[in-house]
Amino acid sequence: MTLRAERDVPDAAPDDAPDDAPDDAPGNPERAYVHAHLADLHADLDAWLRIPSISADPAHAKDVAASAAWLAAALRRTGFPTVEIWPTDGAPAVFAEWPSADPGAPTALVYGHHDVQPVDPPEQWVHPPFEPTLLEGPDGPELHARGAIDDKGNVAFHLLGLRAHLAATGRDTPAVTVKLLVEGEEESGSPHFAAMLAGNRDRLACDVVVVSDTGMAAPDVPSAVVAMRGLADAEITLRGPAVDLHSGSFGGGVPNPLHAMARLLASLHDDAGRVTLPGFYDRVRPLGDRERELLGRVPFDERAWLAGPAASRAAAGEAGFSTLERIGARPTAEVNGMWGGYTGPGHKTIIPAEAHAKLTFRLVPDQRPADLGPQVRAWVEANVPEGIEAEVHVPPGGVAPCASDLDSPAMDALLRAIARAFDTDPDQVLFTREGGSGPEADLVEQLGAPLLFLGAGLPTDRIHSPNERVLLPMLHRGAEAAAHLWRELAGLRVS
Amino acid sequence: MTLRAERDVPDAAPDDAPDDAPDDAPGNPERAYVHAHLADLHADLDAWLRIPSISADPAHAKDVAASAAWLAAALRRTGFPTVEIWPTDGAPAVFAEWPSADPGAPTALVYGHHDVQPVDPPEQWVHPPFEPTLLEGPDGPELHARGAIDDKGNVAFHLLGLRAHLAATGRDTPAVTVKLLVEGEEESGSPHFAAMLAGNRDRLACDVVVVSDTGMAAPDVPSAVVAMRGLADAEITLRGPAVDLHSGSFGGGVPNPLHAMARLLASLHDDAGRVTLPGFYDRVRPLGDRERELLGRVPFDERAWLAGPAASRAAAGEAGFSTLERIGARPTAEVNGMWGGYTGPGHKTIIPAEAHAKLTFRLVPDQRPADLGPQVRAWVEANVPEGIEAEVHVPPGGVAPCASDLDSPAMDALLRAIARAFDTDPDQVLFTREGGSGPEADLVEQLGAPLLFLGAGLPTDRIHSPNERVLLPMLHRGAEAAAHLWRELAGLRVS
Repeated sequence: MTLRAERDVPDAAPDDAPDDAPDDAPGNPERAYVHAHLADLHADLDAWLRIPSISADPAHAKDVAASAAWLAAALRRTGFPTVEIWPTDGAPAVFAEWPSADPGAPTALVYGHHDVQPVDPPEQWVHPPFEPTLLEGPDGPELHARGAIDDKGNVAFHLLGLRAHLAATGRDTPAVTVKLLVEGEEESGSPHFAAMLAGNRDRLACDVVVVSDTGMAAPDVPSAVVAMRGLADAEITLRGPAVDLHSGSFGGGVPNPLHAMARLLASLHDDAGRVTLPGFYDRVRPLGDRERELLGRVPFDERAWLAGPAASRAAAGEAGFSTLERIGARPTAEVNGMWGGYTGPGHKTIIPAEAHAKLTFRLVPDQRPADLGPQVRAWVEANVPEGIEAEVHVPPGGVAPCASDLDSPAMDALLRAIARAFDTDPDQVLFTREGGSGPEADLVEQLGAPLLFLGAGLPTDRIHSPNERVLLPMLHRGAEAAAHLWRELAGLRVS
Repeated sequence: MTLRAERDVPDAAPDDAPDDAPDDAPGNPERAYVHAHLADLHADLDAWLRIPSISADPAHAKDVAASAAWLAAALRRTGFPTVEIWPTDGAPAVFAEWPSADPGAPTALVYGHHDVQPVDPPEQWVHPPFEPTLLEGPDGPELHARGAIDDKGNVAFHLLGLRAHLAATGRDTPAVTVKLLVEGEEESGSPHFAAMLAGNRDRLACDVVVVSDTGMAAPDVPSAVVAMRGLADAEITLRGPAVDLHSGSFGGGVPNPLHAMARLLASLHDDAGRVTLPGFYDRVRPLGDRERELLGRVPFDERAWLAGPAASRAAAGEAGFSTLERIGARPTAEVNGMWGGYTGPGHKTIIPAEAHAKLTFRLVPDQRPADLGPQVRAWVEANVPEGIEAEVHVPPGGVAPCASDLDSPAMDALLRAIARAFDTDPDQVLFTREGGSGPEADLVEQLGAPLLFLGAGLPTDRIHSPNERVLLPMLHRGAEAAAHLWRELAGLRVS
């Protein structure tokens, strides 16, 4: 199935525009509706954020269930005729569906999650994490709470967005069939997500997936995430002597596995910062000129980034790519842990028997996690000296990278929707990349639908950290963009 | 003070040879006496080995004191007119002195220790470690016990050796003044040894130090240790981001301290296996042709060594040197421990804030431990990339390497003594090197006397391991060589 453009976008219904539409939205009834109903969005979010739905903590299992129940009720209030709580072997997900009355209307599936990260360390929160607090910031009002944007804010704007779509188009049903799947285990690695998708393919069938778990580049910079990186991991053990040896009696005469590990890991990147695994780059889709140009226009203050979130003394990485390209659009190899020998106080004069390292690889389209096992093994084999025995463990699975099709009618629809919410032209919407990895790849694989990303977060929102916040103007833009998106997608037809 | 040769060796006194001299020692009254009194040596050693003088275990402090008391009594029985127990802030040492009646006779100080290693793991001992057990082995009778050779056996043979010297020369006092210093903390790192030496320089003054804490190359191979390696250690911390970073959001864009540590440690050796610290080899005294030739004649079965004590799959090390040269006569750098990042089960996708490594260096004459600090710092500075902060901790002190003067009259005397005990010529006595490090360097530094090594151990004696043993024929050779040595040294005069 593909979506193709057929300019049949539902007209706005200015005559039906609500009476309380503010003056700042001439010809933009979606915005008028959103702005007239901000209080609903804020009230909904305030109530939902008070539920500490921490999926990683078994003590909060009831809260995660309460969060699902709250969302189900809110979706029913919004008007969804079908709302279901789907149990899993872990935390429950919420599924909702609002069919379009239009024959042949495409179906969009919104993906989000209702569980939140733990709050550690709690003493670093200026305001209690589950008592949403409104503060005035330099870019407008901010709501501080765990989950404010990741991901309750991103899900909540869809409730207002869909009402705005209906009001602006004067319809009783959306112009596209809208489904939502909001899982409860994303912050715990989505262990039951793939199975849930596999078991509900018919219910979840759609023409486009709209992932609402990301964000934009900066408050006044309309942008769209267009890809996420995949993930594969490996653990390496090198063995030398059968036992720890005395370095006085044997030092200088036998291979030391720590030396071998250092040389192996030093060989993981060449001097240009490129990963040396054989074949690692073979399937990497080159960054297109258009995407590179749009990514290059993303405002990025590297000095502030280093001083702030990156907390680092310098940027570093693959030669020939910018920092934004390196952290989002290029595959990487990172050693996450390394250990061996004596690590206590003082010294112990041994040549240890073993050395260990844990590595993860971030993958970009069209790399495949399953290729990493053979690549890692070949690299280790080529770089371990005589007298050292290597054991490589590469767990099956991994996370595939995923990306939007930049030249698709669905992507064009998204860009028009975002542009309209930011009062600009679609070609002014920049592209960004999400460097992390998530269950989005499962959606592509299981449902076979193209991906769009629409989120209202900012890189400065401190997700997963103390004092998470959402910038309310961004949330309002998100609601409006969602409303525009349903109308834009309705202009496409399944073929 | 130096010792110079003056052929004034006391005659043997064949007329005074004991009546019970066996027939196998014609013209060798020292051997005749030793062989006639083996039962005394065996009985002494059996009694002493029953005292579990484990200095590392505070629960055995009384045993270490009992061991010192036993030795003091035995030295008095032997005839030493002066025997003292020297308390330290740790375990006591034993000092004894038997002055020569000859005016101008040189003074020799024997060094050894009466404490022993712990016995872990006790279940691996075939016979209880403190119940000496006599077994018949392929090379003759073996006595199995903790401390059998390290170092009670090596000290005990001097008691018989000195009696043999007196009997063989028909003297009431030794031909050289003999002092003994037998410490009680060697297996705990000799923490109070240097202070004890400094506080007793006059009492310990000597013309030559005879270290009896080593051994020979093989049962029928007369050999002398001629050097010990020194030791210096360093700990390195590399710091990257201020906190552990998410590898999805930051991976590929900032320096990873584990990568930097791997590259740093990989640069510790060049491709020829040479240590790359600047100036590291500047003060290394080249291995002389004579020593190299003698070391090269030491029987060494590398395959058996790898399959046995080295427990390794291959030999490795500095190009251009044999394994015996690498482990004894060449300086080394070993990474003893390395750690950083996530080391638990599964994976954690972080770029860690820190990486750590512990290194030790074995030094050979004339390297100086104090030079290592600047060398390590210069090496780290030259090999740490931008964005990584390095902290290098090099504790003061370290252990200096030490060596015998191969071309000295004292060395000639030792070689003649050993040769006579093995019925061979002095130029058939091979040279070996001790790769480990010990308090011997303190003796050189504090007392300013040249070093000789005379020990009866074998590389196969399992010192520090379960089932330590001494080969009794080696112990008998040690006693005889010691007896010959006192006579040979008496031929030297202090000038």
